[in-house]
Amino acid sequence: MSTAVATEIDPAIRAYVDQQLAPLRERLPENRVTLVVFSGDLDRHLASLVIATGAAAMGMEVSIFYTFWGLSALKKTSQLEGKSLKEKMFTLMTPGGLAGLPLSQLNFGGMGRVMLRSMMKEQQVASVEELFAMARELGVKMIACTMSMDVMGITREELIDGVEVGGVATFLGDAACSRAALFI
Amino acid sequence: MSTAVATEIDPAIRAYVDQQLAPLRERLPENRVTLVVFSGDLDRHLASLVIATGAAAMGMEVSIFYTFWGLSALKKTSQLEGKSLKEKMFTLMTPGGLAGLPLSQLNFGGMGRVMLRSMMKEQQVASVEELFAMARELGVKMIACTMSMDVMGITREELIDGVEVGGVATFLGDAACSRAALFI
Amino acid sequence: MSTAVATEIDPAIRAYVDQQLAPLRERLPENRVTLVVFSGDLDRHLASLVIATGAAAMGMEVSIFYTFWGLSALKKTSQLEGKSLKEKMFTLMTPGGLAGLPLSQLNFGGMGRVMLRSMMKEQQVASVEELFAMARELGVKMIACTMSMDVMGITREELIDGVEVGGVATFLGDAACSRAALFI
Repeated sequence: MSTAVATEIDPAIRAYVDQQLAPLRERLPENRVTLVVFSGDLDRHLASLVIATGAAAMGMEVSIFYTFWGLSALKKTSQLEGKSLKEKMFTLMTPGGLAGLPLSQLNFGGMGRVMLRSMMKEQQVASVEELFAMARELGVKMIACTMSMDVMGITREELIDGVEVGGVATFLGDAACSRAALFI
Repeated sequence: MSTAVATEIDPAIRAYVDQQLAPLRERLPENRVTLVVFSGDLDRHLASLVIATGAAAMGMEVSIFYTFWGLSALKKTSQLEGKSLKEKMFTLMTPGGLAGLPLSQLNFGGMGRVMLRSMMKEQQVASVEELFAMARELGVKMIACTMSMDVMGITREELIDGVEVGGVATFLGDAACSRAALFI
Repeated sequence: MSTAVATEIDPAIRAYVDQQLAPLRERLPENRVTLVVFSGDLDRHLASLVIATGAAAMGMEVSIFYTFWGLSALKKTSQLEGKSLKEKMFTLMTPGGLAGLPLSQLNFGGMGRVMLRSMMKEQQVASVEELFAMARELGVKMIACTMSMDVMGITREELIDGVEVGGVATFLGDAACSRAALFI
């Protein structure tokens, strides 16, 4: 029916309507969700991954920008070689991967983290590692913030494979055309 | 005048314009705000309720998703019966309602909270309990995150009446058509 | 060409299309980003200013609402005169400007802050003060939340010049027509 209607219409009118709609189409949000993960807390990473996998499963495009403490989630290893003293200190004091992330509340030197992980397992909720793997399989784009990497002395070699790097312009490019953008 | 103009127009053209606009209309944000309250801090709950009541008063649809530590705000009671040891520990270590929420900064074992509440009263700013009640009266939809309830061992009986429960798909459904979605 | 097409079209049709598009145009987001800075942490302020200056440099309108602990960034001085005892205590316990902001993690009584600032300098990343000045030069609108000022006993005299004050309605007015709104 859509074609039937369209062909009845004067091409000049069709062109006019198109021309009027073009600027609107450009400003409409895409079917996309963009997350900034700033925090290094296990519970906030869980929340971000539940949202990211949920959105991807619903057919939305998803980008996660990892910045500051959030970058820990993308580390496969912590290297000290070739780093300045301050970079070495930062490296030693921040977790080298998802396994070491603490809780934002009730951490009690790691006990809260162990307890939360154990309760998730009992309730058969996917672990943070499983959710992360699921997000990657579902095509969630993961971007490491270059400025944070520079400041914290994190090298590309320390990051897991398949991660993009980008700056604030990359983030804003995605966020500006998203249905929702969250800072976590 | 709007009807006058419309009636002059060839029905085929009207149908064509409608057909061109339908996909745009679908992608436009509704007059809606969606909040995720992840935190269990009094000050962050205050911020979320000020935004929620403000938006509702301005005629916007508002949903608040309470997840993780944020769920404390929806508890009317803390039950221990029938819970596992770990669930009991979580229950005892998290506040059972708005009254027990600490501050995110300067809490000093509860002194900061008492001080903030007292300064709000002096300035005749609505308390967190009043804002919460106002939000409900204004029709703000409150949803408890089912996954968090499972993981933290919170039962429906512990939640106040009139609260919906939902998962990430419910949240994304609301967030995707919102003018603004905030993670608090 | 745009005019050429438009002039061929019957004015009644042009009026009809305009009338159909008006409600859509009104609901479309503007080229705007709105941030709420609730936190008093140096690292979160850095993130907000990187996003704000980035968006402004890309030609977007940017508003930052400073609320609760975030207000510290707007203070040029801390006054005690004429304040109640509680207001004096709050004033003494919160930083009076960007210089005193701690880190959200690894602060270690200020050592982490000094280290991060030093690493930023070595990497030739703009300091928080430079980013703040840059944001103002780029026309980023900065608004102090009036309710937070009242509750925390902060007066206009304590704020830097050129800052607007506003409430939740001002925030929602900006956020509702933004491409992205973030709570930091």
